[in-house]
Amino acid sequence: MITIAIDAMGGDHGLEATIPASATVVDSHQQVKLILVGLETQIREKLDQQRCANRDRISVQPASEIVAMDDPPAFSIRKKKDSSMRVTINLVKDGVADACVSAGNTGALMGTAKFVLGTIRGIDRPAICAILPRMTGFTYVLDLGANVDVSPEILFQFGIMGSQLIESYEGKSSPTVGLLNIGVEEGKGDETIKAASELFKNSSLNYIGYVEADDVFMGDTDLIVCDGVLGNVALKASEGVAQFIMSVIKQEFMGSMFNKLSALVSRPTLNAVKNRLDHRRYNGANLIGLNAVVVKSHGGTDAVGFRYAIEYAMKSAGSGLVERISQRIATRMETEAIQ
Amino acid sequence: MITIAIDAMGGDHGLEATIPASATVVDSHQQVKLILVGLETQIREKLDQQRCANRDRISVQPASEIVAMDDPPAFSIRKKKDSSMRVTINLVKDGVADACVSAGNTGALMGTAKFVLGTIRGIDRPAICAILPRMTGFTYVLDLGANVDVSPEILFQFGIMGSQLIESYEGKSSPTVGLLNIGVEEGKGDETIKAASELFKNSSLNYIGYVEADDVFMGDTDLIVCDGVLGNVALKASEGVAQFIMSVIKQEFMGSMFNKLSALVSRPTLNAVKNRLDHRRYNGANLIGLNAVVVKSHGGTDAVGFRYAIEYAMKSAGSGLVERISQRIATRMETEAIQ
Repeated sequence: MITIAIDAMGGDHGLEATIPASATVVDSHQQVKLILVGLETQIREKLDQQRCANRDRISVQPASEIVAMDDPPAFSIRKKKDSSMRVTINLVKDGVADACVSAGNTGALMGTAKFVLGTIRGIDRPAICAILPRMTGFTYVLDLGANVDVSPEILFQFGIMGSQLIESYEGKSSPTVGLLNIGVEEGKGDETIKAASELFKNSSLNYIGYVEADDVFMGDTDLIVCDGVLGNVALKASEGVAQFIMSVIKQEFMGSMFNKLSALVSRPTLNAVKNRLDHRRYNGANLIGLNAVVVKSHGGTDAVGFRYAIEYAMKSAGSGLVERISQRIATRMETEAIQ
Repeated sequence: MITIAIDAMGGDHGLEATIPASATVVDSHQQVKLILVGLETQIREKLDQQRCANRDRISVQPASEIVAMDDPPAFSIRKKKDSSMRVTINLVKDGVADACVSAGNTGALMGTAKFVLGTIRGIDRPAICAILPRMTGFTYVLDLGANVDVSPEILFQFGIMGSQLIESYEGKSSPTVGLLNIGVEEGKGDETIKAASELFKNSSLNYIGYVEADDVFMGDTDLIVCDGVLGNVALKASEGVAQFIMSVIKQEFMGSMFNKLSALVSRPTLNAVKNRLDHRRYNGANLIGLNAVVVKSHGGTDAVGFRYAIEYAMKSAGSGLVERISQRIATRMETEAIQ
């Protein structure tokens, strides 16, 4: 049995997303228990209205405060010690839950998780790692916004963590690793990326060199490493263009009577396209490098998206990821100590 | 009559793209003359095979060398003084042509153009400005890769240049300007962007604050300013995801007999979608901040895309852009001298 702690109050939709998602998860998986954390009366009220056959596998853990989407991390850590987010993370720290999920404020979640759980020994900074779809399989990308200023060493640690994540999730040994840059040629980019590239080259990682941002969706690199600013911009630009394309498709199919007819005929196919591209299916990003599994859900997601984030946390909880990263980093430190 | 000089040898497809595009342009527009620059025999041979009713408005200017796609800028400037790229730019410098177009190596084009034409007085660095489609109208984005390290002042100058470009191209006064960042809240981003934001706030530009990368395609900001790394990553990520989505659509419509039928019915609509999203239609980016109009075409484009780049150069040539930027910057320098 896997136990997942859920920040029931987090995200733009709070209980409207987290409660139905939790019900679906316990009704779809036999081996999971969920702990919903937050304002007890509200959660119980909402749970009572929710159709759920396996309600006995959902429990409630009271927490009296809520971290706002714009609360600065330091403020939420110091002033909201009984927030649903903090109590959720405490449950993992105390070993009550195997992993946790929150759709709350990213900065506060990362800050609180770092403060409560601590960072794996040998890792300087945790990062956010997302999984994005491509034609064949997935691309793992980190960092997605946690780290604005990075050093070559930190980028290299991202590479180690991401590689371990792919090995444990996909069972793929020696996944390929690329560094996101503005060109694939040697000599491109700033001093940080050039120095990082040297670290990767001299390592046991399966480093393939620089990649460009279109490789996230059209390439075949397993892991793409970048700082949080580039990762955020690549992800947001992709979201924007995907939304734009879907709007153009909708507008064209609604344009004339003939197009409406063809839309009717094409509906199953267009729905299949929409389904494959539905970003809710890829919801859930690992806060990687912490001493426990913390999954960040997109703040604006609905019950469908939040369900995927919980399922992702279930997968992460059983992956032994933290131990793998710890071991890999420990080996590295030993090797360096000998040299 | 507008005269455009064309680097006939540049880009991945060279003459295969530039010659048919040039023929289409002179046959579609009465008020344009084109000068094709490059290896004379090859150009004339290719021109003789090309159907073109207005061949008399195309002339040939010999140049004996070609800048390779991976030639470093300094090498191409020092060692290839008779390259098609260099001679093309010389024609603008000498007043023989009103503007020029090249699909060659971006770094070499920017380096050579800066060296030959010089930068507008008061502008520290030229930038690459592209025009991208959104649901209603266009978003102008700069810089797209020319400048890796920028200061707040340089970002601010990008804002001035971009605003003038929109005013002269779209006849829109006081276009809205946003700074690309990893969040819209005050306090997001690094020190450079925060300082740049202050410069924008205290200026006469119509500054609306930070924008995120999804705003490029889904927002309504007229101009988005960023450094070349972010601009490049946003653009490449968008290209990747657009290609990915089109591949998914194709795959789904080819998936089953029924889908093939529905594809048949939907073909006109799907073609309309494809046409609206065709990136070749948005080909052509201004190297802005130079003392003349230089348009960069996508290196991998075909004859259709290169035609759009030539037409964009025609529009640019008649816009008085260089004078507008010079005046705006001169006014700024005067005001600052008085203060």
